Amino acid sequence: MHMVDLRAEAAAVTERYRNQVISQVNTSCLRLAVFEETYAWHHHPMADELFLVVEGLLAIDLADGTTFELGPWQSVTIPAGTVHRTRAIGRTVNLCFETLGAETIVVSAPA
Amino acid sequence: MHMVDLRAEAAAVTERYRNQVISQVNTSCLRLAVFEETYAWHHHPMADELFLVVEGLLAIDLADGTTFELGPWQSVTIPAGTVHRTRAIGRTVNLCFETLGAETIVVSAPA
Repeated sequence: MHMVDLRAEAAAVTERYRNQVISQVNTSCLRLAVFEETYAWHHHPMADELFLVVEGLLAIDLADGTTFELGPWQSVTIPAGTVHRTRAIGRTVNLCFETLGAETIVVSAPA
Repeated sequence: MHMVDLRAEAAAVTERYRNQVISQVNTSCLRLAVFEETYAWHHHPMADELFLVVEGLLAIDLADGTTFELGPWQSVTIPAGTVHRTRAIGRTVNLCFETLGAETIVVSAPA
């Protein structure tokens, strides 16, 4: 059992993309992602995914054209099977709470 | 699907104690707790519980005398079956990721 300082963990990341499991919680986990890019369109067939922004701005695009733009302490849960992509606006630090080892299916960009 | 602003949710709480489910994520949930008190000693027999502080200072006391003192963006995961209590230092806002409907067993104060 130990205390984790999420901003200190994020500050230690020097790569342009890193996504790591910070804590396991039952069969779920808390992941910390630091990135400056746009991720591929994808979905998780069996797993909801909760996003929570720590630093910066994170856009989450859905296939129907909806975009959520999240700043610090803003959150959205993407239901299982929903095609989405994350898009960092500058350098973004965000948390994901999701099933440990959730399957990810990468898909083509929506028309 | 909707965006949640966790600080705005917390700011709207006028009670001295409130603990509400903000989002369901698979068979888990994100809870937002706002309180100014010391909670009873307890444990969750089957469920780990991750704490993440939003505002203020939260002490988490364990039965062996260990105390974690968490400020904003600091986190600790309490394993299933571990007797603990939360203790707000002033008004505290914190998140919990845990199993939806996890059983709670209240126990006597440790000797």
